[in-house]
Amino acid sequence: MTLSDDETATWSALATVLERLPAALDAQLQRDAGLTHFEYGLLYALDTAPGRTLKLKTLAGYASCTLSRLSRAVTRLEKDCLVTRVADADDGRTTLGVLTAAGHDRVQAAAPGHEELVRRIVFDALSPRQAHDLGRLSRLIAEAAGPDRVWAPTQG
Amino acid sequence: MTLSDDETATWSALATVLERLPAALDAQLQRDAGLTHFEYGLLYALDTAPGRTLKLKTLAGYASCTLSRLSRAVTRLEKDCLVTRVADADDGRTTLGVLTAAGHDRVQAAAPGHEELVRRIVFDALSPRQAHDLGRLSRLIAEAAGPDRVWAPTQG
Repeated sequence: MTLSDDETATWSALATVLERLPAALDAQLQRDAGLTHFEYGLLYALDTAPGRTLKLKTLAGYASCTLSRLSRAVTRLEKDCLVTRVADADDGRTTLGVLTAAGHDRVQAAAPGHEELVRRIVFDALSPRQAHDLGRLSRLIAEAAGPDRVWAPTQG
Repeated sequence: MTLSDDETATWSALATVLERLPAALDAQLQRDAGLTHFEYGLLYALDTAPGRTLKLKTLAGYASCTLSRLSRAVTRLEKDCLVTRVADADDGRTTLGVLTAAGHDRVQAAAPGHEELVRRIVFDALSPRQAHDLGRLSRLIAEAAGPDRVWAPTQG
């Protein structure tokens, strides 16, 4: 069941994207906003949530990461006063992440530069039809690589 | 120049792939072969090169990483006796990476499990036509995110 030559060529191209794109996104965000792309994604998810608040479990789902990786990232963001943890008033065992005013300002300031880079790398390189196809293919692969799969328990 | 709603949806799907796919690949390879996906890629590139040997600079290009990140990875692989560094006989300033017999055995043993996971996540989820399209779109994006771009100097 090894990959055919055509499949190997396709996979090689996708694997190159998996190396280059996160490296470029991290470099731009680190340089201009002091954030990793992962941290930016967490702030962005909170910024667009009602009351700028999400259960940490829900946020981990959005970020496709384990609760322990999320917890380490939130601890870093708390040190910069961008996020705070609070107990859920409806359920004391549930912890909420709340974006602070400083966190809102940080993600709003970072968004234009980040989106400009995404535009340059992804959307300037593709026709609108190709971009539409990319979205469809990405959803199929994201689903197949979902966190409910057998290898998920060993994710870091 | 912010992203449109359609572009945001496409980007969100691709960003999910960028989180989930490397996590799944790393988890499988770490569990079954004691390698990260990045390390596997280095061993695979050496294994398919003439004489199982590449200039480290060339290998860094294949892996889309800086020479310093490559050097740290090669140091780890040397400790496991999977790769050795030797001076290029034709140019003493150039360092070559050479796959050892143990490195060859490790990558050969790891390949079936890795390729099976790639098949399950990518090729089982797509039609042959979709897989072909994915390769074409990935090459366009990989090119646009190439290491010769302005943000490359700050890559880790």
